[in-house]
Amino acid sequence: MSNKIKLGVVGYGNLGQGAVKAIKATDDLELVAVFTRRDPETLGIDEPGVQAVHIDEASDYQKAIDVMLLCGGSATDLPEQTPHFASMFNTVDSYDTHAKIPEFYQSVNEVAANHHTTAIISVGWDPGLFSINRVMADAILSNGENYSFWGKGLSQGHSDAVRRVNGVKNGVQYTIPSEEAIEQVRSGVNPELSTSEKHRRVCYIVPQEDADKSAIEHEIKTMPNYFADYDTEVNFISEEELERDHAKAPHGGFVIRSGKTGKDNNQLYEFSLTLDSNPEFTSSVLVAYARAAHRMSQEKQFGAKTVYDVAPGYISPRSAEELRKDYL
Amino acid sequence: MSNKIKLGVVGYGNLGQGAVKAIKATDDLELVAVFTRRDPETLGIDEPGVQAVHIDEASDYQKAIDVMLLCGGSATDLPEQTPHFASMFNTVDSYDTHAKIPEFYQSVNEVAANHHTTAIISVGWDPGLFSINRVMADAILSNGENYSFWGKGLSQGHSDAVRRVNGVKNGVQYTIPSEEAIEQVRSGVNPELSTSEKHRRVCYIVPQEDADKSAIEHEIKTMPNYFADYDTEVNFISEEELERDHAKAPHGGFVIRSGKTGKDNNQLYEFSLTLDSNPEFTSSVLVAYARAAHRMSQEKQFGAKTVYDVAPGYISPRSAEELRKDYL
Ligand SMILES: NC(=O)c1ccc[n+]([C@@H]2O[C@H](COP(=O)([O-])OP(=O)(O)OC[C@H]3O[C@@H](n4cnc5c(N)ncnc54)[C@H](OP(=O)(O)O)[C@@H]3O)[C@@H](O)[C@H]2O)c1
Ligand SMILES: NC(=O)c1ccc[n+]([C@@H]2O[C@H](COP(=O)([O-])OP(=O)(O)OC[C@H]3O[C@@H](n4cnc5c(N)ncnc54)[C@H](OP(=O)(O)O)[C@@H]3O)[C@@H](O)[C@H]2O)c1
Repeated sequence: MSNKIKLGVVGYGNLGQGAVKAIKATDDLELVAVFTRRDPETLGIDEPGVQAVHIDEASDYQKAIDVMLLCGGSATDLPEQTPHFASMFNTVDSYDTHAKIPEFYQSVNEVAANHHTTAIISVGWDPGLFSINRVMADAILSNGENYSFWGKGLSQGHSDAVRRVNGVKNGVQYTIPSEEAIEQVRSGVNPELSTSEKHRRVCYIVPQEDADKSAIEHEIKTMPNYFADYDTEVNFISEEELERDHAKAPHGGFVIRSGKTGKDNNQLYEFSLTLDSNPEFTSSVLVAYARAAHRMSQEKQFGAKTVYDVAPGYISPRSAEELRKDYL
Repeated sequence: MSNKIKLGVVGYGNLGQGAVKAIKATDDLELVAVFTRRDPETLGIDEPGVQAVHIDEASDYQKAIDVMLLCGGSATDLPEQTPHFASMFNTVDSYDTHAKIPEFYQSVNEVAANHHTTAIISVGWDPGLFSINRVMADAILSNGENYSFWGKGLSQGHSDAVRRVNGVKNGVQYTIPSEEAIEQVRSGVNPELSTSEKHRRVCYIVPQEDADKSAIEHEIKTMPNYFADYDTEVNFISEEELERDHAKAPHGGFVIRSGKTGKDNNQLYEFSLTLDSNPEFTSSVLVAYARAAHRMSQEKQFGAKTVYDVAPGYISPRSAEELRKDYL
């Protein structure tokens, strides 16, 4: 028997696939099985030794699994799956519907507290690492302002929107932080900036044959909510270029706090991520927090937790001694 | 009686002065007194309502103070002061002699565990925030490499060294991260870089009248350990320029981890600080961690702790509910 922490993965979408790879990259974690609502045979998992199991059989694995990584979608899967699994397992999920987090927390906390499990919710980069930095920067620089910028990132919702435009065959949309806005923030003037002032939108469109490109461009740029308020750029490319240059799911962004201390000293705090693959990074964060869920559960810290409740050392594979000696 | 957390400051150097200002900038913390080894009358504290007290009287304040911020120097003050004060108070210090941290931890832990106090050691930005980011990035991106860059920053040791050079009347030295090295790291190639390859050194020298400038420049650039291995730049300026442009103590730097996930996706994690005042920022971090020392002590988490043991929510003035609702 190994000393490794034993993990299960629930849901085999982008995050689930990323989690399987992220677990493989560690020495202290072990994947027991992937659970899915689909016919397990159809997942086509091409990782040696990784077992696919129907989600209904998960309850048989309570002894075999220390922590379940819940990789379902935030819209409908997690509000149901997290409370369900938290009644049987320690869990980590990436619930990211910011407005509904308090409600989600309540429902998970009730189950986890009752069943003596540790359920870390809303883990990833935003919510997740960005949230940590917003809070730490705010705690340290009382007199200042937080700014979150997203991108350069492929936005699923906006890509869907441009693909619905008349004459568009295919396309993608990137959200890009405005360099000008970032420079303003870095200068320490603490500007008031709306989301549309902080970001630009750039589209790469494959037009249908004989489509009216200027009509497409006009329809995109004037689309309410999605594009009208933004500085929007529309580029036309071929299907081959789309496949070659736009197949990944990059994302990232910045959390910046600019604050003042003493008489008039500017202090700039910045955290940023530049990700080739949003889901692979997000699931790598989930995997690291599995260590925390396991340790906190062993210490009987039960109930729903967020990244704010997790000491940084808990997510590391290294011992407290090693961290003090080599990383402090 | 207010509900504020009551703090004391030990040592009124750069950090001690910064701590007094940082406490003033908060709504939830209150300064009870500044303790000094000098005649308290001579400190000339110009903050209304701030009391200076001789350090020998600190033991009378055990009931009145929740957490002592230890702002002494790392070389000789803290190895003596932290164990001494941890026998009576919860403490936060900024001990930064990286190589001796394990030993320092042991000596503080023994006292704090015995006396049921919480002593958070080595708080600040490096060690401190940089340490947290080195560990979190390493935990998340198993397959990658950490890089710490320091600067642009005024280096006390190197400034002292140039001031000892023949013909130098006054001068300062800045450590500056090499843009080229940062770009290499950001590109994802994970280069091997020595400290001298990661940094440049820039000196601003006020020469004595009739001094041989080229001899000064040569002596600085060939100085072993300090400059010989570095790309070093020497500028000559007037005493007025030195006073006008080089009176602050700026510092900062970057922690960058570049890692790979999945097949070949680059993921870049960056944390950076750009500080007009190193001591004011460092003491602002100490002040925020005082909240954690107080809370952890109330939860009977006694003994020596590091930033790795402190959950981010503990340093915030805001409630867990507010953090989940507005910051997650
Ligand atoms: N916190 C953060 O920073 C962060 C970042 C990124 C994403 N997220 C969150 O993570 C959630 C999951 O993202 P995701 O990209 O992994 O979503 P996804 O690919 O759509 O997967 C969601 C679920 O859909 C099912 N599914 C996936 N592919 C399917 C297919 N071909 N046919 C039928 N069902 C399929 C899977 O469940 P079964 O295997 O059970 O069918 C899977 O668990 C998102 O909703 C988002 O809220 C958070
Ligand atoms: N972790 C980090 O990121 C970080 C960053 C910056 C600094 N630090 C650490 O913080 C430590 C303190 O830095 P600092 O800049 O505050 O040092 P400092 O100004 O030299 O003060 C150290 C002590 O010297 C005494 N002192 C100060 N001014 C004096 C004066 N004019 N005459 C006589 N005594 C005086 C004070 O004690 P009394 O009042 O008792 O005399 C004070 O506590 C450094 O040693 C460094 O290790 C850590």
